[in-house]
Amino acid sequence: MKTKDNIATRLKKDLIMSGQYGREPQRTVSNYSQLDPDKGVTRPTGTEANKKVRDFCVQRMLDANLEVKIDMIGNIYGRKEGSKINDGIVMCGSHLDSVLNGGQFDGALGVFSSIEAIRRLTEEHFENERPIEVVIFTGEEGSAFGSTLLGSAVLAGKIRIDDALMQKNTNGQTLKNALEAIGYLGNFKKQLDSVDCFIETHIEQGPVLYNEGISIGIVENIVGIAWVTVTVTGQSNHAGTTPMKMRKDALLAAAEIVTAVNRNANEILKTRGSGLVGTVGKLVVYPNGVNIVPGKVELGIDIRDVLEENMLIMIERTRTFMKELESRYGVAVDIKISPTHAPAHLSMDVMQIIEDSTRRCGLSFKRMNSGAGHDAQNMATKVKTGMIFIPSVDGISHSPLEWTTWDDIENGTAVLTQTIRTLSKLDRK
Amino acid sequence: MKTKDNIATRLKKDLIMSGQYGREPQRTVSNYSQLDPDKGVTRPTGTEANKKVRDFCVQRMLDANLEVKIDMIGNIYGRKEGSKINDGIVMCGSHLDSVLNGGQFDGALGVFSSIEAIRRLTEEHFENERPIEVVIFTGEEGSAFGSTLLGSAVLAGKIRIDDALMQKNTNGQTLKNALEAIGYLGNFKKQLDSVDCFIETHIEQGPVLYNEGISIGIVENIVGIAWVTVTVTGQSNHAGTTPMKMRKDALLAAAEIVTAVNRNANEILKTRGSGLVGTVGKLVVYPNGVNIVPGKVELGIDIRDVLEENMLIMIERTRTFMKELESRYGVAVDIKISPTHAPAHLSMDVMQIIEDSTRRCGLSFKRMNSGAGHDAQNMATKVKTGMIFIPSVDGISHSPLEWTTWDDIENGTAVLTQTIRTLSKLDRK
Repeated sequence: MKTKDNIATRLKKDLIMSGQYGREPQRTVSNYSQLDPDKGVTRPTGTEANKKVRDFCVQRMLDANLEVKIDMIGNIYGRKEGSKINDGIVMCGSHLDSVLNGGQFDGALGVFSSIEAIRRLTEEHFENERPIEVVIFTGEEGSAFGSTLLGSAVLAGKIRIDDALMQKNTNGQTLKNALEAIGYLGNFKKQLDSVDCFIETHIEQGPVLYNEGISIGIVENIVGIAWVTVTVTGQSNHAGTTPMKMRKDALLAAAEIVTAVNRNANEILKTRGSGLVGTVGKLVVYPNGVNIVPGKVELGIDIRDVLEENMLIMIERTRTFMKELESRYGVAVDIKISPTHAPAHLSMDVMQIIEDSTRRCGLSFKRMNSGAGHDAQNMATKVKTGMIFIPSVDGISHSPLEWTTWDDIENGTAVLTQTIRTLSKLDRK
Repeated sequence: MKTKDNIATRLKKDLIMSGQYGREPQRTVSNYSQLDPDKGVTRPTGTEANKKVRDFCVQRMLDANLEVKIDMIGNIYGRKEGSKINDGIVMCGSHLDSVLNGGQFDGALGVFSSIEAIRRLTEEHFENERPIEVVIFTGEEGSAFGSTLLGSAVLAGKIRIDDALMQKNTNGQTLKNALEAIGYLGNFKKQLDSVDCFIETHIEQGPVLYNEGISIGIVENIVGIAWVTVTVTGQSNHAGTTPMKMRKDALLAAAEIVTAVNRNANEILKTRGSGLVGTVGKLVVYPNGVNIVPGKVELGIDIRDVLEENMLIMIERTRTFMKELESRYGVAVDIKISPTHAPAHLSMDVMQIIEDSTRRCGLSFKRMNSGAGHDAQNMATKVKTGMIFIPSVDGISHSPLEWTTWDDIENGTAVLTQTIRTLSKLDRK
């Protein structure tokens, strides 16, 4: 029992310590009641806090006798050699950067639970026939530079390294300079042909596991994401002197769009199944005075599903509806559809190994989809990929109030450790 | 003809000169094509620009041989003595403060056309039996201090002078200190019992006269105004991981409110007539990220009519609808109704005199209501009050693109001058 306690305390300490970086004033949070809705974790790529959490994590890798390397996009790899072969790597990990004012487990859990898994394997003198590598991806959140999932996109060959390094943050600094400044611009190009599979452990960031009281989520698909940016232009006018029939009220048309996005999403869900979600998360009114008929409204629409066809139907139906508003309200509706992330389908073989591992740990589980984007979706285009989800209290994420219980973290780490045990054997039995 | 030209040039010059104060960089605008949508007039009460335009106007009053006095709320009076009596004053004027980034005629027209009218009467050796006073009201727009129509509200006894002077601007400065700082805190309390009637000349700030090609609007009523502030509180969540059926989307409920305000206003208009308008001019979403289900939305609703009963029906119908949204969307709807300005009904006698004056000038006119608030509505509670409207190009107001043609300004000034001629005679024939 003493050993079990020490194991749990060690990972807990890593997560609490790493969770202080980017939280001002610097403080540790070890239980739910200590969460402060105003004091989350802020460590976009290239910030001082991002450097500190990387430094801390690299030290923990070195303490665990891992060989540390940094690639040209700043991804960090911590390697434990295989006893039989040097390639066919089992890779596991996630990211350490955060959104503005986010939570302490988003990303960090996947990194530190991977280090913990290797520590456990080492201590039990487990012989991993394949090499195991813990990876920390650069710029997953897109909170500093233009794109999300940047480090894994470069690794998977989705974005050219030079294009990625030239992206700029809001200070006008390139990613290359930012990585150089914090000491994490490496000089080698990591090749995925030496990697066999990838496992990402992550908090669910949604309410399903927590609401249903299930310990482990085994991810089957990661949703595709499309962002639609809409500008409705009417005519700004005095709210008192402009008769109702003479108005070109941009907000009135925008309100119809908000309602239509919800209605279309629910209809497609009902008639075509799958897990489509459609959200107007952003809406800005100009000039936004109580006594002024709104002249312009900008909306941001988020559409996701694991079936790309559903997303395309949703986009098309919503676009048709929006264009009809032009004549009805005397407004212009400008629609921009951002490049869509395609849905990712994870490895059936890896899912089965995670499921077997979960059964072996005696834990409840469910197969499910991920509604959030993850580095795993880029990795899945090149190597066999799996994801282990653990419950988020109340489904809250990207918020200082994000939390996951220590018991659930231990459960996820146990399943990850067992999954790596199996994957790192040549025969995978 | 020479005299007529000089007259027109003189008022035009006053309006162009006064229109440069509060426009950065300081520049004059003498025709429509010079308007810059980014460079309007900004001179809230107590600002340097507000001081400068007051100084300029006081100098023009002195040039016209008017006796200038400033009262305890900073209203400025320029007096031409009557030949027969010292009370029963004919008062005319408007305001010189502005909204942020507004137009150069809103308020200023009513002040400078009044000075011009007196100049014309003096030059033609007209004998005004009653005194005539030009008034510049303090703080009409409410762009610096809490309330609109402040100077006229104090004059009409609607607000206590001490309460008004204690109101603070966004810098935390009291109105008293602000007036003192610009040298316009006077020391006498103006009494309305010496005033017989009030005439305000103003741009329409709406599209009716311009669209119908009519020169003069004779105002019958000024609308009442109610502002309703609504906060919809749902739950902020990840747009990807929160299934449609688990959401408490505050924006979805808010969109229903936007639509309902419009629908209710149109229904009441159709079934009950009058000129009801209902507008959601302000809407702010929190946290306003494209990938976050909105957790909170604040709305500002503006409701106006010349019939108070219609406003009350509109408020009640909208409130009932909003409360029903709580159970439908799982949100909380908090509703605050600000103190309502009652509709004001202007003097039938003064309307008739304005109409007779307009006929005498050979100009087209229509009786109409004012959808905007004006100092005249406070004055109407104490003295016989009339308003002369002139056309706003395209109905635009509270905007750098506000414009009125010099011909229409001359027409309005001619009607005002003739109206003052009649009103300032003891027998008013």
